[in-house]
Amino acid sequence: MSEALRLGIAGLGTVGIGVLSLLEEQRALLRQRCGRELVVSAVSSRDPQKNRGVTLGAEIVWHEDACALAKAANVDVVVELIGGSDGIAKQVVETALNSRKHVVTANKALLAIHGGALAALAESADRALCYEAAVGGGIPVIKAIREGLAANRFDNVYGILNGTCNYILTSMEKTGVDFNEALSQAQDLGYAEADPSFDIDGIDTAHKLSLLTSLAYGTHVDYPSVFIEGISQIGALDIQFAREFGYRIKLLGMARRTAHGVEQRVHPCMVPLGTPIAEVSGVTNAVVAVGNYAGQSVFEGPGAGAGPTASAVIADIIDIARKKILPPFAAPFSRLERLAPSPMELRHGAYYVRLTVVDQPGVMAGITAIMAEHGVSIDSIIQRARAPGEGVPVVIITHETEEADMNRVLAQLAALKQMREPPVRIRIEKL
Amino acid sequence: MSEALRLGIAGLGTVGIGVLSLLEEQRALLRQRCGRELVVSAVSSRDPQKNRGVTLGAEIVWHEDACALAKAANVDVVVELIGGSDGIAKQVVETALNSRKHVVTANKALLAIHGGALAALAESADRALCYEAAVGGGIPVIKAIREGLAANRFDNVYGILNGTCNYILTSMEKTGVDFNEALSQAQDLGYAEADPSFDIDGIDTAHKLSLLTSLAYGTHVDYPSVFIEGISQIGALDIQFAREFGYRIKLLGMARRTAHGVEQRVHPCMVPLGTPIAEVSGVTNAVVAVGNYAGQSVFEGPGAGAGPTASAVIADIIDIARKKILPPFAAPFSRLERLAPSPMELRHGAYYVRLTVVDQPGVMAGITAIMAEHGVSIDSIIQRARAPGEGVPVVIITHETEEADMNRVLAQLAALKQMREPPVRIRIEKL
Repeated sequence: MSEALRLGIAGLGTVGIGVLSLLEEQRALLRQRCGRELVVSAVSSRDPQKNRGVTLGAEIVWHEDACALAKAANVDVVVELIGGSDGIAKQVVETALNSRKHVVTANKALLAIHGGALAALAESADRALCYEAAVGGGIPVIKAIREGLAANRFDNVYGILNGTCNYILTSMEKTGVDFNEALSQAQDLGYAEADPSFDIDGIDTAHKLSLLTSLAYGTHVDYPSVFIEGISQIGALDIQFAREFGYRIKLLGMARRTAHGVEQRVHPCMVPLGTPIAEVSGVTNAVVAVGNYAGQSVFEGPGAGAGPTASAVIADIIDIARKKILPPFAAPFSRLERLAPSPMELRHGAYYVRLTVVDQPGVMAGITAIMAEHGVSIDSIIQRARAPGEGVPVVIITHETEEADMNRVLAQLAALKQMREPPVRIRIEKL
Repeated sequence: MSEALRLGIAGLGTVGIGVLSLLEEQRALLRQRCGRELVVSAVSSRDPQKNRGVTLGAEIVWHEDACALAKAANVDVVVELIGGSDGIAKQVVETALNSRKHVVTANKALLAIHGGALAALAESADRALCYEAAVGGGIPVIKAIREGLAANRFDNVYGILNGTCNYILTSMEKTGVDFNEALSQAQDLGYAEADPSFDIDGIDTAHKLSLLTSLAYGTHVDYPSVFIEGISQIGALDIQFAREFGYRIKLLGMARRTAHGVEQRVHPCMVPLGTPIAEVSGVTNAVVAVGNYAGQSVFEGPGAGAGPTASAVIADIIDIARKKILPPFAAPFSRLERLAPSPMELRHGAYYVRLTVVDQPGVMAGITAIMAEHGVSIDSIIQRARAPGEGVPVVIITHETEEADMNRVLAQLAALKQMREPPVRIRIEKL
């Protein structure tokens, strides 16, 4: 048997503790599967006194400074579980790679923003930089795209990448509550953070999407080019109308190679009921990859939590223990392509638009005239009666049209004097 | 860039041709992803004259004898696409490994029956024996269990592993036809073979299951211990009753480690509507792996066909090109465990039983007395009226009980003089 692989765990939050307990609980199993021992030789955390419910052996070196752990002589693999795109997490990863340690991280923000530079650093140090836990929690989707489906050109790759948003949308549908109510319930249950903006504004989804895009299309990670729209404007009415039209609302991250470059978008979508992605509920994540040979593959599982994240972190460690190391973005950094972002204005598809108007004669004529002016044709339209004085919802489903035309239509609709609230637009994705 | 990897393709059926066209069409993409060229240097087939719709370069050596290809000096990887558990396929794989060539195969029958010996041979030759295409078509499920979820102890692993059976069951539900009708439609459409027994009798599912079991539990492949029951006794009535009770009938392969050893079973199951596995329709395959840390992961995609199979075959070749080679069953052969099969008689769960009886006074009393005698309690019972003289269906759902008791009950019920047809038993799996 080869010698033990020595792990330094930087960050002892929920995930760090999950990783420690998995390593402890499944020591024999991991030894069988890796052909060598995985041992924790160092840990770091800001507060070494805190009781975490795990006992750490006396042979484990404690560091208050995570960067000291990252260059410690008794560490082969640095496991970065601190989080955040900059600051200490970035320093730890850089220090580790510069000290020729392998790195395993769950940090999607760090990789979305600095993935390119860190990949180049890892390759020049001839060390691994692995991040299975950064996307899709316990679902081994990074590996599936980088290896399992590597023979394919991908028509598109998309998914539900944020459990918080999917939980909120699912609970709005199940209970009929509005967005704010669903959010605060999610916060009470620990499914949403006190400051939920990274999740509900789509940023977390965009971070993850940018990594999938790079892997699927062999391109440089390009997070700044992702089109991002969150879910906070979705109302209970939209959830209800979606269902009437045969759709369900999901926050998707979607990547596609187009004639113009690479398209990366994150926004709420109406997806047809009965498709696999529409049936994913609660905090579950799912990724769909459509390969030109493999066809449509669907990967589904818990998107977050200590257990699934620890499972993914250890999967990376097992790869390193087995000496199965690939460049971080599958192809060597020097061979990744730099493609232009495909402009969002060229998105072609149907739209759901919900307007809230004062019920006056001529309103409908005004709305439909604007749409006609820009060549946007209407598939269906619904106006519901409300109590007098209240804004009346008018819901329109368009035929397929271009985003640029819809932008012009919506700008003009928003300016109508009978408009009581900003129009809500949700893109319909046939997928 | 490393030197080219030279492939010898043994067998030019649909899959072989798919592999050739993928390699040709995606040459540049594969070069980027592998960091080296994948070239076909030899092919073999029984009929070199046949027009296959692909043109093969003059530099490719044709062999009429696949074993000659398997030891040819200009071949690094032998791709065995001949099929069959013995005969020429086995000779080709053995010859290749003995000649120190890597082997990639889609042959589940071969591995289910000779996987242990071949793995030992591959390891002693220090060469790869890869078989992603053997299970789940294009879904990279072998890799997911062997690597992506390798940190987990599996509570259970199960799936829809045969597209033909799932197609037949789906079409019985959609159209209301009986089994024989659905089978002959599937044959007309090319979804079932002229001799469909390998599929409908559950043998193909059992072959695949035995491979998943070995990977998930670190045990020797043990196909002979799989409990196997096919789908040919399922009637249109069963499909209809299943739906009434909130279930759908699927042929599942299921593996689990129990206190008694390893349980491997293949049989029709009633699974609750709304679970991921119940919603998999047509020729799609799906595998569910429940890990003690990752939770429930679901993998879904096309289970067969030239494109998906070629995708999986090339994924294995890419692993070899990237020098990412593992022992065939993840842990080295010498460290695999040999566990006793867990007896089917100990299966604990609910049962659906459909009886066809002559409608005479006292029949129901007789049936229920037999069940009471063996301590099997009844959850619900339905008797439907039929035209006079016809057998009357009596459908019973039991509470959870043991397989051994049900076996005794069914033997006695079958012997009742009012019984018109053999009882149909379908196990209910809560999963």
